[in-house]
Amino acid sequence: MAKDKVTEAVTIDDIRAAARRLDGHARRTPMLSSPFLDEISGRRVLVKAEPLQVTGSFKFRGGWSAVSQLPSDCAGVIAFSSGNHAQGVAMAAKMRGLPAVIIMPSDAPQLKIRNTHALGAEVVLYARGKEDRDEIGDRLARERGLELIKPFDDARVIAGQGTTGLEIAEQAAEAGVDQADVIVCCGGGGLTAGIALALEAEAPGLRARPAEPERFDDVRRSLETGQIERNAAEGGSLCDAIMTPAPGKLTFPIMQRLSGPGLVVTDEECLQAMAAAFLRLKLVLEPGGAAALAAALYHPGESEGDAVIAVASGGNVDPRVFQDALTRYADSV
Amino acid sequence: MAKDKVTEAVTIDDIRAAARRLDGHARRTPMLSSPFLDEISGRRVLVKAEPLQVTGSFKFRGGWSAVSQLPSDCAGVIAFSSGNHAQGVAMAAKMRGLPAVIIMPSDAPQLKIRNTHALGAEVVLYARGKEDRDEIGDRLARERGLELIKPFDDARVIAGQGTTGLEIAEQAAEAGVDQADVIVCCGGGGLTAGIALALEAEAPGLRARPAEPERFDDVRRSLETGQIERNAAEGGSLCDAIMTPAPGKLTFPIMQRLSGPGLVVTDEECLQAMAAAFLRLKLVLEPGGAAALAAALYHPGESEGDAVIAVASGGNVDPRVFQDALTRYADSV
Repeated sequence: MAKDKVTEAVTIDDIRAAARRLDGHARRTPMLSSPFLDEISGRRVLVKAEPLQVTGSFKFRGGWSAVSQLPSDCAGVIAFSSGNHAQGVAMAAKMRGLPAVIIMPSDAPQLKIRNTHALGAEVVLYARGKEDRDEIGDRLARERGLELIKPFDDARVIAGQGTTGLEIAEQAAEAGVDQADVIVCCGGGGLTAGIALALEAEAPGLRARPAEPERFDDVRRSLETGQIERNAAEGGSLCDAIMTPAPGKLTFPIMQRLSGPGLVVTDEECLQAMAAAFLRLKLVLEPGGAAALAAALYHPGESEGDAVIAVASGGNVDPRVFQDALTRYADSV
Repeated sequence: MAKDKVTEAVTIDDIRAAARRLDGHARRTPMLSSPFLDEISGRRVLVKAEPLQVTGSFKFRGGWSAVSQLPSDCAGVIAFSSGNHAQGVAMAAKMRGLPAVIIMPSDAPQLKIRNTHALGAEVVLYARGKEDRDEIGDRLARERGLELIKPFDDARVIAGQGTTGLEIAEQAAEAGVDQADVIVCCGGGGLTAGIALALEAEAPGLRARPAEPERFDDVRRSLETGQIERNAAEGGSLCDAIMTPAPGKLTFPIMQRLSGPGLVVTDEECLQAMAAAFLRLKLVLEPGGAAALAAALYHPGESEGDAVIAVASGGNVDPRVFQDALTRYADSV
């Protein structure tokens, strides 16, 4: 075990240091609950409400964790993102007074593109599946001397996301929960890995488990086979925030050592969980940010214990998609 | 001044005692913000997010404050409410293991009626404007020996709502705001009066100001004339939560001594503020719970200072009304 830990890119000390940098800049988001959700799941459900984080998703934690460490004479930052990491990094750069270039897929939700631009970033669009975003990012970073902030495979970013786990450990203890699955909406694994490390140190009875959309369950399959597996699909899910091709080189070993088996949900279950969060928590979720709650509510047989914790990771949803979720499910939740 | 205070029904000590009773039962709701809202208002906007309170509105505070003081051999409680007080009292009674009877207008939002029933209360409907809810309540209370919990003109309830003000005082200080108007969605004045008392003691640079819907601005007019004025209208606003006929006998003297002038908003402005809170805060507001934010965003000339605090009081909105708000305003916020 000690040997494994030495090879990992992030330690609990990195997460604690990130928490000190985030103090006064990021929000300590609440843990919400409703007896109506408990009834659906058949157990107590606690929801960590990261849509209430600065920029509407947990991504500001990693963005600020990384950007706050840069020297003030830095030429600026660059990031590639479908939208939430984009906004998190753009906001962090704005708060530090640094220029930001964000490379986004042209099919990202309009709301995310507009917000990223409104936060002062230069937005560069690329065609998902046709152009190589890494190549575009590397070239721009080189040409302009920008610091690249990767969305998940960056130790500073994983440490920032891990601060969510420190808060979960405290809030679960306050709620009297010391044994539970902590289900996390999972793309590349930055949030899942960071939370897993924080829980290992602060709440060893809590176990992180990734939740992914159908056809984008690369992390679940990678955990099963013990090696990094990629998704065949490149688009077509409503869960734009977590349609990542494969777990990261830094995140995967951490998840492999610490997280429980992956859970898979459908787009329809995510829409239904969005309606449930609207009605019962007064919280706006985006489809990808609802995957963990969907797993907690609609796959109760796949987790154990008297309580389950779902990390709601973001709420940057286009209004049409949200209205559609309410039209289909608000009367049946 | 000392003479005035002696005649008031609630003191800061009552509010502090209520805060101790609420500890571990009610939530400390977050204070949210967004640079996009600051831009609309032209000043810094802080939003106290009471839709995230237990049962989706601040009313659980007053409900629990009152119900937690009853003897355990009490025969049960009775309340009349268009919905939020109903849910707050029903939940408090359920947590104490006491029966609850709730008298609701038959035109209350279906969601509120269903939720109140689902929380275990017996729901009695009456025709708003035709039947006298006070008479119905008094009769049932007498017949069954139930303890009446009034929605605002009850010292225990005002003290409970005032705990919102204690939190605002702390959170404003943390945010570096010590001079600001605190705009409060106002029906009978329980929340406004409670907050005003808490701010007087804990944050004297913050001033409570009631916000009301057009045609239901009884508190604004009462503050102007110095006597209790009633509304001519009895229905027809989207702001069901705050369509109260007149300020209370207990709440009015407190508001008269402490609160600033009233603000009036239109239903359309409330719908627009709901869309803004959806997009920028990821928070669900009901029309009546959006009145304060609407005043902060769309009547910037009517408050002073570098910052404004809006108390978002509840989020129990029927999905159709919410969808309508997004259809009309989500693209233009």
